[in-house]
Amino acid sequence: MATTLIQGGTVVSATGRGTADVLIENEKIVALLAPESRLLGEDLAGSVDTLIDATGKYVVPGGIDAHTHMQMPFGGTEASDTFETGTRAAAWGGTTTIVDFAIQKHGERVFDGLEAWHDKANGECAIDYGFHQIIGEVNRDSLNAMDHLMDEGVSSFKLFMAYPGVFYSDDAQIYKAMRKSADTGLLSMIHAENGPAIDAMVEELLSQGKTDPYYHGVARAWQMEEEATHRAIMLANLTNAPLYVVHVSAKQAVAQLAAARDNGQNVFGETCPQYLYLSMEDQLGAGGFEGAKWVCSTPLRSREEHHQDHMWQALRTNDIQMVATDHCPFCFKGQKEMGVGDFSKIPNGIGSVEHRMDLMYQGVVNGQISLERWVEITSTTPARMFGMYGRKGVIAPGADADIVLYDPSGHTSIGLGKTHHMNMDHSAWEGFEIDGHVDTVLSRGRILINDNTYLGSKGHGRYIKRDACQYLI
Amino acid sequence: MATTLIQGGTVVSATGRGTADVLIENEKIVALLAPESRLLGEDLAGSVDTLIDATGKYVVPGGIDAHTHMQMPFGGTEASDTFETGTRAAAWGGTTTIVDFAIQKHGERVFDGLEAWHDKANGECAIDYGFHQIIGEVNRDSLNAMDHLMDEGVSSFKLFMAYPGVFYSDDAQIYKAMRKSADTGLLSMIHAENGPAIDAMVEELLSQGKTDPYYHGVARAWQMEEEATHRAIMLANLTNAPLYVVHVSAKQAVAQLAAARDNGQNVFGETCPQYLYLSMEDQLGAGGFEGAKWVCSTPLRSREEHHQDHMWQALRTNDIQMVATDHCPFCFKGQKEMGVGDFSKIPNGIGSVEHRMDLMYQGVVNGQISLERWVEITSTTPARMFGMYGRKGVIAPGADADIVLYDPSGHTSIGLGKTHHMNMDHSAWEGFEIDGHVDTVLSRGRILINDNTYLGSKGHGRYIKRDACQYLI
Amino acid sequence: MATTLIQGGTVVSATGRGTADVLIENEKIVALLAPESRLLGEDLAGSVDTLIDATGKYVVPGGIDAHTHMQMPFGGTEASDTFETGTRAAAWGGTTTIVDFAIQKHGERVFDGLEAWHDKANGECAIDYGFHQIIGEVNRDSLNAMDHLMDEGVSSFKLFMAYPGVFYSDDAQIYKAMRKSADTGLLSMIHAENGPAIDAMVEELLSQGKTDPYYHGVARAWQMEEEATHRAIMLANLTNAPLYVVHVSAKQAVAQLAAARDNGQNVFGETCPQYLYLSMEDQLGAGGFEGAKWVCSTPLRSREEHHQDHMWQALRTNDIQMVATDHCPFCFKGQKEMGVGDFSKIPNGIGSVEHRMDLMYQGVVNGQISLERWVEITSTTPARMFGMYGRKGVIAPGADADIVLYDPSGHTSIGLGKTHHMNMDHSAWEGFEIDGHVDTVLSRGRILINDNTYLGSKGHGRYIKRDACQYLI
Amino acid sequence: MATTLIQGGTVVSATGRGTADVLIENEKIVALLAPESRLLGEDLAGSVDTLIDATGKYVVPGGIDAHTHMQMPFGGTEASDTFETGTRAAAWGGTTTIVDFAIQKHGERVFDGLEAWHDKANGECAIDYGFHQIIGEVNRDSLNAMDHLMDEGVSSFKLFMAYPGVFYSDDAQIYKAMRKSADTGLLSMIHAENGPAIDAMVEELLSQGKTDPYYHGVARAWQMEEEATHRAIMLANLTNAPLYVVHVSAKQAVAQLAAARDNGQNVFGETCPQYLYLSMEDQLGAGGFEGAKWVCSTPLRSREEHHQDHMWQALRTNDIQMVATDHCPFCFKGQKEMGVGDFSKIPNGIGSVEHRMDLMYQGVVNGQISLERWVEITSTTPARMFGMYGRKGVIAPGADADIVLYDPSGHTSIGLGKTHHMNMDHSAWEGFEIDGHVDTVLSRGRILINDNTYLGSKGHGRYIKRDACQYLI
Repeated sequence: MATTLIQGGTVVSATGRGTADVLIENEKIVALLAPESRLLGEDLAGSVDTLIDATGKYVVPGGIDAHTHMQMPFGGTEASDTFETGTRAAAWGGTTTIVDFAIQKHGERVFDGLEAWHDKANGECAIDYGFHQIIGEVNRDSLNAMDHLMDEGVSSFKLFMAYPGVFYSDDAQIYKAMRKSADTGLLSMIHAENGPAIDAMVEELLSQGKTDPYYHGVARAWQMEEEATHRAIMLANLTNAPLYVVHVSAKQAVAQLAAARDNGQNVFGETCPQYLYLSMEDQLGAGGFEGAKWVCSTPLRSREEHHQDHMWQALRTNDIQMVATDHCPFCFKGQKEMGVGDFSKIPNGIGSVEHRMDLMYQGVVNGQISLERWVEITSTTPARMFGMYGRKGVIAPGADADIVLYDPSGHTSIGLGKTHHMNMDHSAWEGFEIDGHVDTVLSRGRILINDNTYLGSKGHGRYIKRDACQYLI
Repeated sequence: MATTLIQGGTVVSATGRGTADVLIENEKIVALLAPESRLLGEDLAGSVDTLIDATGKYVVPGGIDAHTHMQMPFGGTEASDTFETGTRAAAWGGTTTIVDFAIQKHGERVFDGLEAWHDKANGECAIDYGFHQIIGEVNRDSLNAMDHLMDEGVSSFKLFMAYPGVFYSDDAQIYKAMRKSADTGLLSMIHAENGPAIDAMVEELLSQGKTDPYYHGVARAWQMEEEATHRAIMLANLTNAPLYVVHVSAKQAVAQLAAARDNGQNVFGETCPQYLYLSMEDQLGAGGFEGAKWVCSTPLRSREEHHQDHMWQALRTNDIQMVATDHCPFCFKGQKEMGVGDFSKIPNGIGSVEHRMDLMYQGVVNGQISLERWVEITSTTPARMFGMYGRKGVIAPGADADIVLYDPSGHTSIGLGKTHHMNMDHSAWEGFEIDGHVDTVLSRGRILINDNTYLGSKGHGRYIKRDACQYLI
Repeated sequence: MATTLIQGGTVVSATGRGTADVLIENEKIVALLAPESRLLGEDLAGSVDTLIDATGKYVVPGGIDAHTHMQMPFGGTEASDTFETGTRAAAWGGTTTIVDFAIQKHGERVFDGLEAWHDKANGECAIDYGFHQIIGEVNRDSLNAMDHLMDEGVSSFKLFMAYPGVFYSDDAQIYKAMRKSADTGLLSMIHAENGPAIDAMVEELLSQGKTDPYYHGVARAWQMEEEATHRAIMLANLTNAPLYVVHVSAKQAVAQLAAARDNGQNVFGETCPQYLYLSMEDQLGAGGFEGAKWVCSTPLRSREEHHQDHMWQALRTNDIQMVATDHCPFCFKGQKEMGVGDFSKIPNGIGSVEHRMDLMYQGVVNGQISLERWVEITSTTPARMFGMYGRKGVIAPGADADIVLYDPSGHTSIGLGKTHHMNMDHSAWEGFEIDGHVDTVLSRGRILINDNTYLGSKGHGRYIKRDACQYLI
Repeated sequence: MATTLIQGGTVVSATGRGTADVLIENEKIVALLAPESRLLGEDLAGSVDTLIDATGKYVVPGGIDAHTHMQMPFGGTEASDTFETGTRAAAWGGTTTIVDFAIQKHGERVFDGLEAWHDKANGECAIDYGFHQIIGEVNRDSLNAMDHLMDEGVSSFKLFMAYPGVFYSDDAQIYKAMRKSADTGLLSMIHAENGPAIDAMVEELLSQGKTDPYYHGVARAWQMEEEATHRAIMLANLTNAPLYVVHVSAKQAVAQLAAARDNGQNVFGETCPQYLYLSMEDQLGAGGFEGAKWVCSTPLRSREEHHQDHMWQALRTNDIQMVATDHCPFCFKGQKEMGVGDFSKIPNGIGSVEHRMDLMYQGVVNGQISLERWVEITSTTPARMFGMYGRKGVIAPGADADIVLYDPSGHTSIGLGKTHHMNMDHSAWEGFEIDGHVDTVLSRGRILINDNTYLGSKGHGRYIKRDACQYLI
C-alpha cells in the first residue's frame, strides 16, 4: 500500500475553500484532515510514503476535458494528436480525465465504432479516459445499439446538425434518437449549426471568390448557430430528452439556452476557451492564410458584437455550465494548408487540451469568475454532467486521487518552445501569458507532473465506465 | 477534548454524495474519512468518546434559516416565539443556525437597534445565530452607521418597499442605501411589494366591505410584487448594488429575477415553504376568519395561476437560490384575532422554522429537487450568501460540527400535539406528512436532538459574526 | 357608362368610419361624397343609373382572401371547389378577390405550373383573382424563373418546411430562395412546420395504433410549428428576405413572430378562422372518424392551452396582421374517408372561403376586435401585403368598385342547407350563428349579391397582376 | 358658401396613396374625386371659388401635435411661446391642431386650472386646439372632478412620476387616478421617470461638483425611465386603465411598452423628434453651458447605446405609435441661463412645434419610415388616440378641411433667420436641412400658409372638444 499526504494546501471545491490535508492510499483519497486535528494528524506526515508540501497552493480536483477528438479522421486527414500525445499534453496542463468521441460513421455499426476507439486508446493514455458515442447514422440498427450504450459506460451520444453528407442527422433522425435518449437516460449532445444552409452559403461565398479563412466565419453566421440551438431545444422539449449543446460560441445561442433552462428544460451548454478569448476579427482575420490556424466550428465570433464578453458572463451566471476544449489539432503544414484557396477544405479544429486549466484560471485572475467557479466549470460539473462524480470531480474520501496543485504565484507562458506538448507545429495560443502555474498533477495517486517534469507513462490511463448524467433527478 | 465519530452514513453535499465517516473534535469537524482507509480508520471507532451510527442515514450540514423574526414587534403585538422557544423549535427541525433581523425603527439609531437585538438573543438561543439589519429610516445618520455594520458581523441589511409609515423606504432612500451597499459590500435585501399602491387597494376593498382574510391576498396582487421586484432590480442596476429579494411568491417576480441574472446582475431570490405548498384559494380562502392563520406578506398566491409549480421549478433551475421561512409566528387567539372585521389588522406572519428541512425534503421525495439541491438550498447557499461558508453550510475539515442525520426511512407528522414545538396555538402546517425524519442534530459538536429528545440548552447558541456575501467575486 | 350611387351608408376604413356616399362609374369608384355637399350632391341620386340605399349598413371594401387552394391536387385527390364554385361561394360571403396558389411540382418548371393555374382559372371566376407561386423544387431553373415572377404579377412565392417528398424544401433550398426573395422583392411565404420530425412522429403514432383524426393534432405538435417559425425567421434574418408565415395556429409561434417584428425584421403572420374558433379537443377529437372534417395543417390547437384566445389577442395587437382561410375543401365521402384507419391519409383542408367575413365580423360583435380592425385584417392589409392596395382594399376614388354592404342588424346561420354554397358535402362551420349579414356585394361596379340572390357570372373575375408588398419601404 | 378645390395632388393616408381631387365647402371636406370622373369632375374647377393646384405635391391631413406646453410656468419662469406665437409657428410647419396641457397645480382645483388654460388660449390661436388635463394633486376633489372631464372634451389626463414636490404623484395616487381612468374611459398619460431616485442622484452629482448640463442626462439615467415605464404598465395592468406614456426616449422603455402590447394591454407610447435625431454626447455634451439648449426631460440619450436607431425602428414597427414635440421653449438669455452652475435649475424644454412635420418627413427621405407611416404618426394616430378622428387626422368627406400640401421637391433649412417663427432666441435644430417643404396649409378650409406667407390670424383657432380614445374597443 502506497500512501501520500498533501499537506498545508488550500483545498478548493465548487462551493468553497479551506485549509485541509489530503491523505491518499494507493489510488484513492481516503481522508481530508484539518491540520489541527490532534487525534489523527500528529504523526501522519512521518508515516506516509510520500509527503507533498502544498503550502501556498490550491489543491483542486484534476481537470476533466469532456470534449476531445484524438486522432480523429476529418476531411481526408486525421487530428494530429494520438491518444498518447494528447493525453500526455493534457496531463501537463492539469487535466486528468478526457472524454473523447467514438465515431459510428455512415454505413458502420455503432459498436464497431466504439470498439475501434477502444483499440486506439487502450494502453496509450497517460490519464483516464471515457467515450461519448457519435451516431453518424441514425437508423434502426443504431437506435437498437443505443439501448446498450449505458451498459458500456457510454452515457452520452452526439448528433450533428452540421456537416451534411458526413455526420449530419436530419430532424427526423434527431427526433428518433432523442426519443431513445428520453427512454434510456442517455444524454443527447448536439453540434448545433444549420449545416444545409451553411453549405449553401459556403457555395455562394466561394462562387464570389471569397476563399480566405475569414469567410469560414462569415459562412457559419451566428444566425445558423442560434437557429440550430433553438431547434435542438424544441426537439428536446417535444421528446423530453435531456440536451447538451457542445461548443456554444454565439451570444444569441446562449440566450436560447438560458430561456430553455428558465423554462425548466434539462438543457446544458458547453463553451471552449477559444470562444472566450479569440475572435473573428483578430484571429480568423489575421491576414492571408494565417487565419487557418483558428478555423474551427462553431467559428470564432465577432469581438465587435461582444460575443466573448457575453460568454464570460454566461459562464458566471451558469447560463453556460462548463468549459471543454473541443481539442482537435491539425498541423499547419500539410493539414491546414489543404484549404489554401478554399476555406471549406481547411480541417476544422484547434488544439487546447493542454491549456484549458490555465486559460480558465486566468479568468479568475481577471475577475471574471471566482476560484470556486473555476473548479466547478473545469472539473466538478463535467464529472456530474457525464456520470463520473464521486470518482472524479471532487476531493473527497473515496474519490480517485486525481489532484492538481495549482500555484497562484507561478507563471505560465504558452507557446511553441515553451509549455507546448501537443503534437502540432504551431499553437493557437502563442503568446498567452498566465498568472498561475500547474505545479503538481496526480492521477489515481500517481504523480504525473512535478517540478515541470513528466513522470507519467503511456498506459497508466484507464477507461472510465460512466454513469448517467447526475443532473437529471 | 471531546471526540465524536459519525460512522457509516452517506455524506451529502451541494454537489454530490458518498460514504464517509465524520470525525469531530470538540466543536469542529476535523476529518472526513473513507471507511476503507487502513492507515487511519481501524481503531478510530474505539478511541472516540462518542460513536454515532449513521448507517442508512443522510449526513448533511445543519440547516440555516436565513430569515426569521423572533419576538418581533408588529402591528401592536409581538411575534410569539422568543429567541429561546424559536431556536429550540428550529433545532428540533434540523436547523442549527438562524439569521434574524435586528430592527432600526423610524426615529431610532441603527446601532441602538442592533444592540437591542443582541440583548434579546444573548444567552437565550439553542443554536447559533446572526443578524441582518433592518434599516427603518434611511437618513444621514443611518447611512453613516452602515459603514460599520460589516465590522459587527452584519453583512446585509434590509429595506421595505412595503408598509408606508412603518418600515417603508421611498426610492430616494433606496437609491442612497444601495449606493452605500455598493461601496461597503453589504448585501441589499429588499421586501419587494409596492406598499403605497397596496395600501390604496386595501382602503378600496375595506370601503367595499371586503374585510375577510382572503382579501389580504387580493390587495397584495402579484402585479405589485412583480413591479417592486423590477424596481429594486433597476435601482440595483443603476447603483451597482448586489440585491437579494426576500420571500418571492409570484411567478412573474421570478421571471424578473431570472432576466436580471441572465443579464449578469448580482441578483438573488429567496422563497419560503408556504409559497411552494400553500395557496390563496385553499388556505387564505379557507372560509370565515380561518384564513387569518395564513396571512403573511408577500401573500399566498393563486394555485389556479400555478405560482406554486413555477416556484418549485425556479428552485430547481436556480432562478430562486434558497429557501428560508420568514418565520414570524402569531397565535390565533389574541393576535390573529386582532384583524376580525378588518384583514389589514391581522398580524402578518406564518411559523415554519421547525419544519423547513422536512418540508423541503419532501420535495426530494416528490421528485421536484435532487437530494443535493436540498442541501444546497437549505444550508450551503444560505451559508455562502450570508458569509458563513467554511464554518457553516458544509461538512469539511475545519467547519463547525453542525450536522444533521436525516433518516429517509423515517416519517414525520406535522401538527399540534405531534412534532410542533413553536410557541403558537395552531400550526400553519397541520396535517402535513413527511416521508423522512430528522434523526440526530449536532450543533458545534454537541448533540441537540437524538431519539426524539431535546438535549440542548438555552445559551448554547452563539452570535456569528458574518463575512460578506461569498457569491460576489 | 354605368353609374351607381351607394347612398347613406357608414363607410368604414382601416382607420375610421364616417357617413359618405360612394359614386361609381363603370368599374371604378370615382367619388366619396359628404351627404351635405351642396355643390355636388343634390341631384346625384336622380342622375345615376343605379341607386343603392345603404342606410344602416356598413360600406366596406370587398374582402380579400389571400390564401385559397381551388381544385388543388393533394394526396391523390383534388380540392373539391373549382375556381367556378369556389369564387362564387366567396362572392356570397363578401369576398371579391382571392389569391390562389399556382403550383410548381417537383420535376416541373415554374412557369408551366403558373400557366396551368391560369388555364384552370381563366374564364371561370366570379370575382377577381391573383396567384402566389408555390416553388415545389428549388433548383437552378426555378431560381432563375423567380427573376421573372414579378413581371407576371406574381409578387410572392411559397415554400414548405413540411411535407417531405411532396412540397418540402430543405434549409439549403430555403436559403437560396430567400436570397432570391431579398434580391427581387418577392415576398417569401412559408408553411412553417418541421415536416421531417412530424413525419417521424406520425410513423411512431401509427405504429402504436393511434390512427384516429385526433392524432393528426398530436403529431403536428406546437413545438414543431414554433420551431419552424423560428427557423424561417432566422433564415430570413440571415438573407434579409421579407417573410410571411401562413396559417399560424400556435401561440408560441405568434410569440416568435412578435419578437422578430419588435426586433425590426420584416416578418408577417396570417391566421385563419379555424384557429380562432375551433380546437383540437372539440373538433379534431369529436369522436370516431368525425374529426376528419377538421384535419388541416397546421392543425387545430388545444383550447386548454388557450391558443384561440391568444390568437384573437394577437389579431388585436397586430402581432398577427391578417386573416385568410387556407380554403382547401374536401368532401367527407370519398375524400376525407381516404384516411379511415390512418389519419395521415386524410386530405388536409377545411373550406371557409364563404364565411371568413362573417366569422371575423362576429369578433367585432364579441368585442374582440374593432370594426376598423375587421376591415383591416380582411381587406386593407391583404391588399397592402400582396401589392393590390389602391385598386383593392380601400374605398377611395380610383379604386376598383369592390364593395360590400354589411348589415349589422342582419343575421347569418351557417351550415348545409343554409348559407353554404361551397362544393362540399359538409360544413366545418355547421351551426355557427353570426350577428350580421352580407347584404350586397359589388365587384368592379357589378352587383354580384343582392337580396340573397346571386347575380354574378362565371368569367366576370379577372386576373390581377399584383405589385410588390407595400409594407416594405 | 366658400368652395375650394385641391386638384391634381397625391392624397396620402395612413394606409396608402392615390391621385384625387379634394373639394371643400366652407370648413369641411365634402368630396374626394377621381380626376377621371365624368359625372362630377368636368366643370368643377371652373365653378369653385378657389382652385389650388397640387400637382406634384402630397396632400395630407394637417399635422396634430398632441403634446405642447404654451406659456407654461416651470421652475420660476414660463415657456416662451404664447398660444399666439406657438400656434402660428405650428401653422408655418404644417401643424393644424395642438393638444396642450391645462394644469391643476398642487392646492388648486382641477376646473380652475382648466378654465385658466381656456382663458390663455381663447381668441389667441392660429389653429385649433384641445386640452389634456394635468392632475397635479390627486385627492378626493380632483378624483371627483375627473368624472366630468370627458364632458368638457378633455378625454385624457396626465400624471407625473417625476418632479417630487411639483407635479409628482406617488403610486397610491397613480393607483387611484388609474382606477378613475378605467371607470371613465379617460386615457391615463404618464411622464415616466422615477423622480425621487433621480433627485437623489442630482443631489449626489451636484455635491461632487458636476454641475454642467451634461449631468442632467447622467442623473436621469435610462434605468429610471425604464423602471417608471414598467411601473406605470403594472399599475395600469392592475387597474385596467388604458395607458399612454409621453416622450419615450430610452430603448429599454420601448422594450417594456412592446412587451405590454404583445401581452394585450392597452398601452401606447409617444416619442419626439429630439429622441430620434439628437444625443447626449453631441448636444447635451456640446461643451460648457451650451448643452443647456437641449435640457429636457426625459433627456437626450446616448448615441453610443443606439437609442436613436432603436427609436426609429420602434416607430416603424409600431412599438411606438406617434410623434409629438413636447414643445416647451425657453430662451437662452434669462431663462436657460438660470441654471449656470447648477444644471438642475435649467428650465426643461425644447421648442419643436414648427419643425415636427419636416423632421419626420426627413425620415421618409432617409428610408426609415414610409410616406404612409409619416401621415399616420403625425396626424392619423394622434387623432384616433385623442378622440378627434373623423374631424381631424384624415382626408375624407365630412372631415375638417385641415390639409397640408407637402412638396417633396422643395427644401427647408431650419434655424434662426431661416424658417424659425417660434419665440425663442435660439433653435435646438439650427442647421438641420430637410429634403421637402410645407407648401400650403389649410385649417378648416382657410389658407394659413401659402407661398411662404402667413395668411392666418389670431383667434381663427377653435377649441376642440375631444371624444374618448378611439383605440379602445
